[in-house]
This record gives sequence, C-alpha cells and structure tokens, in this order.
Amino acid sequence: MINKDTQLCMSLSGRPGNFGTRFHNYLYAKLGLNFVYKAFTTQDIEHAVKGVRALGIRGCAVSMPFKESCIPFLDELSQSAKAIESVNTIVNTDGYLKAYNTDYIAIEKLIAKYQLDPTASVVVFGSGGMAKAVVAAFKYAGFENLNVYARNKQTGQYLANLYGYSYIETLDNTPADILVNVTPIGMAGGVESDKLSFPETLIQQANVIFDVVALPAETPLINYAQSQGKQTVSGAEVIVLQAVEQFELYTSVRPSDELIAEAASFARQNS
Amino acid sequence: MINKDTQLCMSLSGRPGNFGTRFHNYLYAKLGLNFVYKAFTTQDIEHAVKGVRALGIRGCAVSMPFKESCIPFLDELSQSAKAIESVNTIVNTDGYLKAYNTDYIAIEKLIAKYQLDPTASVVVFGSGGMAKAVVAAFKYAGFENLNVYARNKQTGQYLANLYGYSYIETLDNTPADILVNVTPIGMAGGVESDKLSFPETLIQQANVIFDVVALPAETPLINYAQSQGKQTVSGAEVIVLQAVEQFELYTSVRPSDELIAEAASFARQNS
Repeated sequence: MINKDTQLCMSLSGRPGNFGTRFHNYLYAKLGLNFVYKAFTTQDIEHAVKGVRALGIRGCAVSMPFKESCIPFLDELSQSAKAIESVNTIVNTDGYLKAYNTDYIAIEKLIAKYQLDPTASVVVFGSGGMAKAVVAAFKYAGFENLNVYARNKQTGQYLANLYGYSYIETLDNTPADILVNVTPIGMAGGVESDKLSFPETLIQQANVIFDVVALPAETPLINYAQSQGKQTVSGAEVIVLQAVEQFELYTSVRPSDELIAEAASFARQNS
Repeated sequence: MINKDTQLCMSLSGRPGNFGTRFHNYLYAKLGLNFVYKAFTTQDIEHAVKGVRALGIRGCAVSMPFKESCIPFLDELSQSAKAIESVNTIVNTDGYLKAYNTDYIAIEKLIAKYQLDPTASVVVFGSGGMAKAVVAAFKYAGFENLNVYARNKQTGQYLANLYGYSYIETLDNTPADILVNVTPIGMAGGVESDKLSFPETLIQQANVIFDVVALPAETPLINYAQSQGKQTVSGAEVIVLQAVEQFELYTSVRPSDELIAEAASFARQNS
C-alpha cells in the first residue's frame, strides 16, 4: 500500500510501454520495497526533468527521444553517460540529478564477465544508439582492432570515426575474433527475424558471437553460433543486466538473477 | 496493477501525511479506476507545478504552504479559487492547469444543502485560510449581515475588511442566527479539545451551529448545540464533501457518501 514515504521511480519515453512499470513494481512487491513505478511521456523535457528534481522523484529511466535532450538539465553525467553522451537513467539524491547509461554499463560488465581479450579483433554491425554504447564500451575496455559495419554508411562512418575506429564497406572478407550484432536482424516480429546478421563463414572463423537482440534470447545468429561450438553472449543478458544496474541505482538493492528473470517474464506478459 | 495508462494524482504540502494517499487509492481500488495517488513535498513550487504539467500528472492537491505560491504557475483559476485567491486542487487537462478550491466549494454547497437564509445574521469565529473560504462562501451566497471575530485581531480585521464585513472585538452581546467556528477549539488532541468555541448563551440564541472542526465529528460545540435542539453542520461533512469534489474533478466519478465514509475511515487508520 502506497503511503507518504513511498518513493516514486518513473520512465520518460516518446511511447511508454508496460514493460518497465510491470518489471519494477513486480520487484518492489517481491522485495518488500516501499517504491512505486510508473511510465510517463512528455512534450516538455526541460520541465519534466526539473519536475523530477522538484518533486523528489527518486529515479527516472530515459528512452527515445530524450536520451540526449535531457542532458542540459542534469547536474552530473557519470562516466557511463559521458562515454556515449547518452542517458538512460537519472538518479535523484536530494535534488541532485546524476545520470548514467546502464546499456553501456551492461556491455562493459559483459566484456569483463566473458573475459573478452582486448587484443582480439572485433566487428560491430550497426550504428544506432545501442551500437554507440557497444563501440564505446569496447573502446574503454582497451580494444584497438575494431571495425564498424552498417547498412547506413553515413551513420556507420560517423560512429567509427567518433571512437577512432575504421568503417568497413562490407562484411565479406573481414573475419574477426568477436562479432557483435547491434541491428534488429533476428528480432522476433521483424521482417528479418529468420535471418543471420553475419555470413556463416565469418561466424565459423570467429570465437565469440555477441548478439544484442533480446527477443528471442536465441536468435538465428545465437543458434547457429552455438551449433558451431562458439562462445555466445545474448541480448537477453544485456537487457537483464542493464535493468539490474538501474534497479540497484534507484533502490540500492540488487535482485538475484532468478528474481530478475521472473520479473522480466511477468513484465513481458502484458507489455 | 499499475500500467502505462495509469493516471497519477498527487498532493503537494509542506509536511505530507498519509490521509490523502490512503483515501484516494482506496477509492480507486473500490471503483476499479486506473489511477494511483501519492503525496509529495517540494522546495521548488515553480518547478513542481511545471513538472505536474510536463509529466501529465492528472491532478494535484495543494496544501500549506503552497496554496497561494502556486498561483503564478497555473493557467486558470476557477471561481472557487479566485474567490479566496487560494488553491487546493489543480486539474491538468492536456497540459492546461485549472485550479479550484474545494474547501470553498464544500462550504458553498453546504450553505445551499441546509438552505441557510441569506437574510440571517452570521458570526464567523476564526481568521485563517479556512475562515477565508467560509467568509467568502457566505459573501457569494448573498449574506449581508456577517461579523468576523478572531483571537488574532489583526488577521480578523483584515479578513472582515476583505469581504466588506465588520470585525467584532468580542463574542459577548453579539447574538446571531448562524454561528460558525473555524478555529481549532474542540479539535481532538488539541489543548482546547474540551472547550466550546462559543458561549452557551449565544448558542442558545442561534438557529444553526456550523463547526468546521472535523475530528471528532461531534465536537463539544456540536454536542451542546444538538442538546439545545439546534440545527448543526459538522466539519466531518466539510472534509468529506471537499474530498468528493476533488475526487470528481480528477476522475469524473462521484463516489457515494457511504463509500466516501468507508474510505475516510480506512485512511484515518494510519494517517
């Protein structure tokens, strides 16, 4: 039951969905935390952010199209948000708004967890916001041999240049130790849901296949890579880890992986 | 269960309590309304109000010390708020903030409900914010013969002058048809909880006794007036009616008196 001491966490996005609201409220209930979560949208990002501060709203998840436009109204960017100049999490401590990017944090932690070797060669396929988080995390982890490929040459070149890497015109003849897909290829419900984001020969030559697509957890890319005995890292891990990081930033409580999986499954039912 | 379509209503006050949060959430649950209510405080009324607008928060109750300081940031004052230049309710319709004072509305409606006669003489005892609502409501209902008495002469005189009435230096020798108490005298827990706010002789000479003290519903004043066969109007009626008005402004649903009483009883348990 909500009372005067209940803390509000929220999200700001162009088109609010149900996932975050169901996910966080489920965890609050299971963990007995006096928090409540609700999704919002706004036409006025400045006063939405200033309202978060003025109303003492504890945390605010930020999605498209506000990840960059919110920045002028914050007090501090942590390294994760600074690295990609993009915010997906605001934490309000007594009116001081500190921003994070837990997508970046999740990629950074997965690179460490799977002990990916900074001397390995990497190809990142994609050039959107999540691709930026991926490229930046590899950069800050010390990877020097990384190439970016994208179907949109302009944004691909821009992203590669931004972090001092090269853009490649084609995936053919560019074998790499680590292949990272950050496009929607293989995503459930998409027109390319049954496609592999990398040629089979490239997958066969690689050691690690990292697919940021979260739904399904087992994309065609992950399935094929596993059939070839490759190490895989799935988008389901990314999405869960970024949510855990966000949850911990807001509440100082870190739920177990099992509870997170339970909450994510619950949240997906009506989102 | 909260989802993306859930509407938030809230309160802004210097020292949030539990009553409003418990009262509104109880009614939402009973009536199956997709709303959630939470109490807030702020150090920055301007950005709190602008945040209400920017975040699409549906309704905001306003208490001390923000009832007047919120006004510059609103789009429109309804007659009830304009009459006393004091806001206790903000309704946000697509970013347009219209303000009301449901204390005033409640007094206005009770004057009509009990068919109080505009030619009757009235004494109002008190000079705070609620006394202002009472005096203004009598004024706009057409009462011409009204006197204000207060223990604080300065604020009493100011209030009387504001609405073109007279201030009286003492309650002695000022019989009236309608006596209204708007002081804390008779309130449970107060140092004057066992006191009558008017002399017995005055009560005996009056027809109607109106006590704005809500807790207990049966103050010494109400009890004594009833023992003398007088018509009485209690503060419990005021507080319930103002809450119903506010609830209806936010949700367009008007709960029954029974349900309101049930919700108020529930809300008092832990407030």
